[in-house]
Amino acid sequence: MDYKKIEGGGITSPKGFLAGATYCGFKSKNPEKPDLAVIYSEKEATCAAVFTTNIFCAAPVILDREILKKGKARAVVINSGIANAATGQKGIDNAKAVEKKAEELLGLGEDQVFVSSTGVIGQQLPVEKALKGLEKIVPTLSREQGTDAAYAIMTTDTVKKESAMEVEFSGGKVTIGAMAKGSGMIHPNMATMLVYITTDAKIEQAELQKYLSASVDDTFNMLSVDGDTSTNDSLFLIANGASGVEIKTKEDKEKFAKLIKEICLDITLRIARDGEGATHMIVSHANNLPTDKDARLVAKSIVCSSLVKTAIYGKDANWGRIMAAAGYSGAKFDVSKADCFLESKAGKIAVMEGGFGTDFDEDKAKEILSEEEIYITVDLHDGDACATAYGCDLTYDYVKINGDYRS
Amino acid sequence: MDYKKIEGGGITSPKGFLAGATYCGFKSKNPEKPDLAVIYSEKEATCAAVFTTNIFCAAPVILDREILKKGKARAVVINSGIANAATGQKGIDNAKAVEKKAEELLGLGEDQVFVSSTGVIGQQLPVEKALKGLEKIVPTLSREQGTDAAYAIMTTDTVKKESAMEVEFSGGKVTIGAMAKGSGMIHPNMATMLVYITTDAKIEQAELQKYLSASVDDTFNMLSVDGDTSTNDSLFLIANGASGVEIKTKEDKEKFAKLIKEICLDITLRIARDGEGATHMIVSHANNLPTDKDARLVAKSIVCSSLVKTAIYGKDANWGRIMAAAGYSGAKFDVSKADCFLESKAGKIAVMEGGFGTDFDEDKAKEILSEEEIYITVDLHDGDACATAYGCDLTYDYVKINGDYRS
Repeated sequence: MDYKKIEGGGITSPKGFLAGATYCGFKSKNPEKPDLAVIYSEKEATCAAVFTTNIFCAAPVILDREILKKGKARAVVINSGIANAATGQKGIDNAKAVEKKAEELLGLGEDQVFVSSTGVIGQQLPVEKALKGLEKIVPTLSREQGTDAAYAIMTTDTVKKESAMEVEFSGGKVTIGAMAKGSGMIHPNMATMLVYITTDAKIEQAELQKYLSASVDDTFNMLSVDGDTSTNDSLFLIANGASGVEIKTKEDKEKFAKLIKEICLDITLRIARDGEGATHMIVSHANNLPTDKDARLVAKSIVCSSLVKTAIYGKDANWGRIMAAAGYSGAKFDVSKADCFLESKAGKIAVMEGGFGTDFDEDKAKEILSEEEIYITVDLHDGDACATAYGCDLTYDYVKINGDYRS
Repeated sequence: MDYKKIEGGGITSPKGFLAGATYCGFKSKNPEKPDLAVIYSEKEATCAAVFTTNIFCAAPVILDREILKKGKARAVVINSGIANAATGQKGIDNAKAVEKKAEELLGLGEDQVFVSSTGVIGQQLPVEKALKGLEKIVPTLSREQGTDAAYAIMTTDTVKKESAMEVEFSGGKVTIGAMAKGSGMIHPNMATMLVYITTDAKIEQAELQKYLSASVDDTFNMLSVDGDTSTNDSLFLIANGASGVEIKTKEDKEKFAKLIKEICLDITLRIARDGEGATHMIVSHANNLPTDKDARLVAKSIVCSSLVKTAIYGKDANWGRIMAAAGYSGAKFDVSKADCFLESKAGKIAVMEGGFGTDFDEDKAKEILSEEEIYITVDLHDGDACATAYGCDLTYDYVKINGDYRS
């Protein structure tokens, strides 16, 4: 679709959104590392969200699910360093205290502030520190602090993750922005993915939720770094209408749905690239299978396979592992016609054609796999359903990061 | 159950079984490394088998499924080094040629020899070498060569895997023996698990298959080294009745079923201990869940979690990861009463009780996790279904073994 990327843009790129961040001491002893962030919409807003399916979900997720029912939240408070998961009723009370304090300071009614946490599971949030942090942040909220917020929610991400785009609708220009954390872990249990998307489009809540949920299936739900689903995963989309542009016509709705998917994909790729210890991003395309479900199973199975991930790390065109992962994915298809291709900026080669291995050039294969972004395509010639999944390689550093003793 | 382990015993411990092995050059240039093995029953035998669910299954698996229909095979020919997978009709023809040659040399009728392969996917088996190897092996088959066969089927296993037991039934003594390969990989794609069980009990084929299939659910199907299901996984059980002991009474049948499960468990543990690059074996018990399915999902999810596996490698009592893995397993249960324990020869500690983290002694936890065999128990107090799963830690060496370029 036709859109303009906003260089350096993020959650405050859309009109009417402010942000702020400060240091509370949840994450680090270094006061240069902020660990509390606020996103705030100056105008009334509609919102949509998607949360972890892990039944050991964190206290903020339990609270946010309630707040989402009204669909009218205007702010999010996010802390990094402590996940507030497996913390029982006290954890919920603490998350609620943060919500109440933010509502009071921002002059909002009840159920208008979401709360997110990411960090170590099983520790209680030092709630007084969070409340004091809010007192510092709220008076200073500004459009200039979007990137500060993006830094504050990082745990061991190696890069901040922000994105923003502008698109013309029938009623005028709409801006959409996002920030996220995820896929970096040094301090254990910080596997959480948190994503915040803001837009100044005006749109009904039910539509907003529909587009967000639909986008997730092909983007975040097709992403895997290590197969471990966090207790805290959350994705929020807040639309405040500040552009004055209402999404009402059929064409605009379709365009808006595409825009949401586009920014979700952009963030998905950023997280895959910054996977823990990763040296390669892996994108796997499963083409021409009998059903969408089959295609999704195959694409995701390839990107989740430890053997595929270590082969890519080793720059080894080990296509047997790719086809084995397709074969145990649970998808049903005819195996006799399969093709398999490896591709990167350095070129593209067929490693399997019509169900047989080709006599490919190993040097060329190694050259292709020496690039950072690797595309694996499996074509089964047994239907017309296609799917794409996103991931990264499995490296010594993944083991190092996650095998290090907690400190 | 009451049985006697036979020290140094294996597939030729039961009466009437012979074995042999030789070097063909499939696996290594070193003629000290045999890569073709034969197991042979001197008497007519009934047999049962279970094969990979991977739809990209290897040629020998396709052939063996046909042979199993008659249930009367008396021998198995196994090669290591080449998997004969993704090899099309030619691969099936090659496997068939090996079967035919063995039947001819052993003086057997058709469909009486199973064929197994393990090794690199996508290469054709040099079938002439295999046929010559058979000519060498068959005249020299003996009871003394059980261990030679166990060595010949190894790929990068660090230890040979054999087991044998004796049990008294109402009609007299029955012996059961087994050999296996699995979980070692240096040369890529050698992830296959191959298991061969022999017994001199006399028993009907349908019963034999029933007991074998039932045993698999709680043993091999609860084992994971890296989540990748091979194209060649095969498990065979051959009963030749040479002991003269018929398994007919209800009590004997129950005892025999337990014996099969016992030897499957023994081999499962040997494979888990020798997992690629592993420094710890991990056994996870999921206790007191609503249904068997829930318990199995939780036990297996824990042992498959990369984050749990790296934590155990790091000797880190990171129980948040264990509960997160239970939570995303797909099982349904009440999370509010969960207990979690870590145990080894060095002792046992509760890290979570009644849904909350305990104030456990980190030094003691590290001492416990410094042992080689680690037991994780999760008790949900929400039903009475229990399950156990088996695996190993995720280490630098796993990445090294599987990331190395094929050579």
